[in-house]
Amino acid sequence: MTTGSWDPYRRDCPSRRLLDRIGDRWTVLIVVALDDGPRRFGELAAEIEGISQKMLTQTLRSLERDGFLTRTAYAVVPPHVEYALTDLGRSLQQQVRALERWAIEHMDVVTQRQAEYDRAT
Amino acid sequence: MTTGSWDPYRRDCPSRRLLDRIGDRWTVLIVVALDDGPRRFGELAAEIEGISQKMLTQTLRSLERDGFLTRTAYAVVPPHVEYALTDLGRSLQQQVRALERWAIEHMDVVTQRQAEYDRAT
Repeated sequence: MTTGSWDPYRRDCPSRRLLDRIGDRWTVLIVVALDDGPRRFGELAAEIEGISQKMLTQTLRSLERDGFLTRTAYAVVPPHVEYALTDLGRSLQQQVRALERWAIEHMDVVTQRQAEYDRAT
Repeated sequence: MTTGSWDPYRRDCPSRRLLDRIGDRWTVLIVVALDDGPRRFGELAAEIEGISQKMLTQTLRSLERDGFLTRTAYAVVPPHVEYALTDLGRSLQQQVRALERWAIEHMDVVTQRQAEYDRAT
């Protein structure tokens, strides 16, 4: 795989796995939540209902590894850790926020289509 | 859940599940592939390397149920079935194509960030 030849239609192309990560529901919700500024772990856990501590930890680490956010530990009492979007993360955020908004804006029509499909089948 | 109050940050909101479906890698690849016009099952299976018949069948049915595509059976010899985007599907397609393009365009920098992270940890 050489630079410039990324193709998610190919089985082993790493761009397919990046697509998995950025389309993931937790990625979308975390990245959009960080749009308002840095957040602590507990704040994200409270805002994103139903995410487990383990899943939040894993997703934050993956987002940090990809370069989408920074993790800053503050040596205060009690100590705390903050997560913030990088420039790359802000670029991603524009895409996933658009996807999230699209989902919200089209929930009514999708719900209607599902009901029609279920009646017809 | 009343109309207009969709919120994917809420645990039981159906918009969270819609977000799951539209961010799914197979959804993205199928919907983008259908941008060029209707496709047969076998064409999609060939274009999207590594997708199983079962996963393709399930994803197409889910996309049809959500109202994103139509399934048309032609009574020819041999019979065949074509899938095509609806207007709603074309609207979704704009979002997921943007996400796919973003992934391809940013693979180089993400790969670089990952290497930096792995060296530092």
